[in-house]
Amino acid sequence: MNRLQDIARILDFIVEVEKLKAVLRKTRPVGLGRYENSAEHSWHVCLAALMLQNFANEALDIDRVIRMLLIHDLGEIDAGDQIVYAGHTASRYREERAGVARVLGMLPEEQAAEYLALWEEFEAGETPESRYARAIDRVPPLLHNLHGGGHSWKENGISREQVMALNSRIALGSEALWQVLRERLEQAADDGLLT
Amino acid sequence: MNRLQDIARILDFIVEVEKLKAVLRKTRPVGLGRYENSAEHSWHVCLAALMLQNFANEALDIDRVIRMLLIHDLGEIDAGDQIVYAGHTASRYREERAGVARVLGMLPEEQAAEYLALWEEFEAGETPESRYARAIDRVPPLLHNLHGGGHSWKENGISREQVMALNSRIALGSEALWQVLRERLEQAADDGLLT
Repeated sequence: MNRLQDIARILDFIVEVEKLKAVLRKTRPVGLGRYENSAEHSWHVCLAALMLQNFANEALDIDRVIRMLLIHDLGEIDAGDQIVYAGHTASRYREERAGVARVLGMLPEEQAAEYLALWEEFEAGETPESRYARAIDRVPPLLHNLHGGGHSWKENGISREQVMALNSRIALGSEALWQVLRERLEQAADDGLLT
Repeated sequence: MNRLQDIARILDFIVEVEKLKAVLRKTRPVGLGRYENSAEHSWHVCLAALMLQNFANEALDIDRVIRMLLIHDLGEIDAGDQIVYAGHTASRYREERAGVARVLGMLPEEQAAEYLALWEEFEAGETPESRYARAIDRVPPLLHNLHGGGHSWKENGISREQVMALNSRIALGSEALWQVLRERLEQAADDGLLT
């Protein structure tokens, strides 16, 4: 291996992933009029996972969770963001996987393989780390809606039943966290943010 | 400790740090017309640190580096962003430290103390982790300028000497990385991006 060539490849990767800053999500950060992008979301969800780690249901390696969350949305550079309530079809999975494989494929081979495996682990949600990471990934958009008049639920015609059903997966990562958020969601529904 | 109250405090923190998404920096991401915000920068620099870890000068705990970089800009919520070439005065340090202490102070006590100490370690730059983190923190803005016509150097009247002097601290974290970037900066200067 030529070390300087590997650095050059990684720098190309660092420039390529900038494109995630242009991928817009479906909620607006609290206090901001504009939509959130997937890069700032990725930071936010890493920090949330770090600070909420004591409330995970299972013993886990928090640093693996964070590495997972740093890369979890890279597939959106090619595939774009899709609202979570649209469901995760096999074709959507293939599209995202092709995107993440292309972007990670810019890295030196060993790293590319390592992080593609980590992305697949996140998607499958069958390990303590990925269950917790997937739970935390739901938290910021819920807070955006709870503190933002339910704007994204309304804009996308999402019902109370859909919100409760989909986000109940938070309990798979942290029952205590779901207890707190479920109560807030029920209050929000009573307040008319969610119908 | 009441677990559910702690979760509520951490959720308040998660909402508060959203404000970092509104703090604008001095460079524009490659391919985007707008300025970068400090939240998406924080994600970008974490990912860069992760992928470049094999090129650090010293043995280090990469996960500590990433945790450091996740919180390194939280002081800017109150203090705003300042161009790195303005220098780091004692009053600027106090302002940022007060900001980061306020924001981290929203967390349960033990966590607040742990992450404030980590922020101070980053600022001091005297451990292998903080030397490397501070080196990597310089990489994205250099790439923005190198791939973006030197826009921020020009807008802020930054000279070739200033760029070379300030960024030579990258070598404290990674000599190999500085070797690659120094050559690119010299080429950029020869090409007229930097005078």
